[in-house]
Amino acid sequence: MASAKPSTSGINPDRADHCRVVGAVLDRIGDKWTIMAVSVLTDGPARFTTIMREIGGVTHRMLTLTLRGLERDGLVTRTAYATVPPRVEYELTELGRTLTTTLIPLAHWSEANWQTIRAAQDQHDARSEPALAD
Amino acid sequence: MASAKPSTSGINPDRADHCRVVGAVLDRIGDKWTIMAVSVLTDGPARFTTIMREIGGVTHRMLTLTLRGLERDGLVTRTAYATVPPRVEYELTELGRTLTTTLIPLAHWSEANWQTIRAAQDQHDARSEPALAD
Repeated sequence: MASAKPSTSGINPDRADHCRVVGAVLDRIGDKWTIMAVSVLTDGPARFTTIMREIGGVTHRMLTLTLRGLERDGLVTRTAYATVPPRVEYELTELGRTLTTTLIPLAHWSEANWQTIRAAQDQHDARSEPALAD
Repeated sequence: MASAKPSTSGINPDRADHCRVVGAVLDRIGDKWTIMAVSVLTDGPARFTTIMREIGGVTHRMLTLTLRGLERDGLVTRTAYATVPPRVEYELTELGRTLTTTLIPLAHWSEANWQTIRAAQDQHDARSEPALAD
């Protein structure tokens, strides 16, 4: 009864490790606010209020958590300047800049295919309430 | 008081739209199980039990939900064969195959930099309990 197909019969621990790592990274950087914050910072260093205004629709608390997460990951630095009033700037690290490069193909794919995915979802949902004919 | 820096002062509605689309796609395909299922299917069509065994650690229910989501997005097809016992195979669609191509740079980046991110997180967490000296 067991399948004899050679291409899919072997357990592949490398793949599992591989996917766990990719999944772990996406768990960290795959959310909308993180992508938007990183996208704003590709233009150069920016202050909290600037990032908040550019993103639009993000709460103060959510942006704080997002930037703190990126700082913890070593993808963004936070620099406080002893001016009056105090000025704090956020900036992509070298690692953060390499990440933005790898996100570009995925961003293009998403833009190119999002409508197709939405259409597939609508079709699928329509089929879930099947017509009587046929 | 307003910043006069030209590079970051303008609100960019295109960026917001762009990031929303990328975020929406990652919300759908950015989770660990989806990536692992897609990864298994890059080898070719596979049965549920094969995918489950290759991934390892996924529950029957979670894999069902994952494959159903991919099918709804038009990224995977599910084909039932009228054999005894009935055989059901999952396969990447053309769209699903183009997605795997765009995920490759991100997968490489994740593998290459995951240790660096982990180290940054550990350093950051250590700094959160600062020493008394200096």
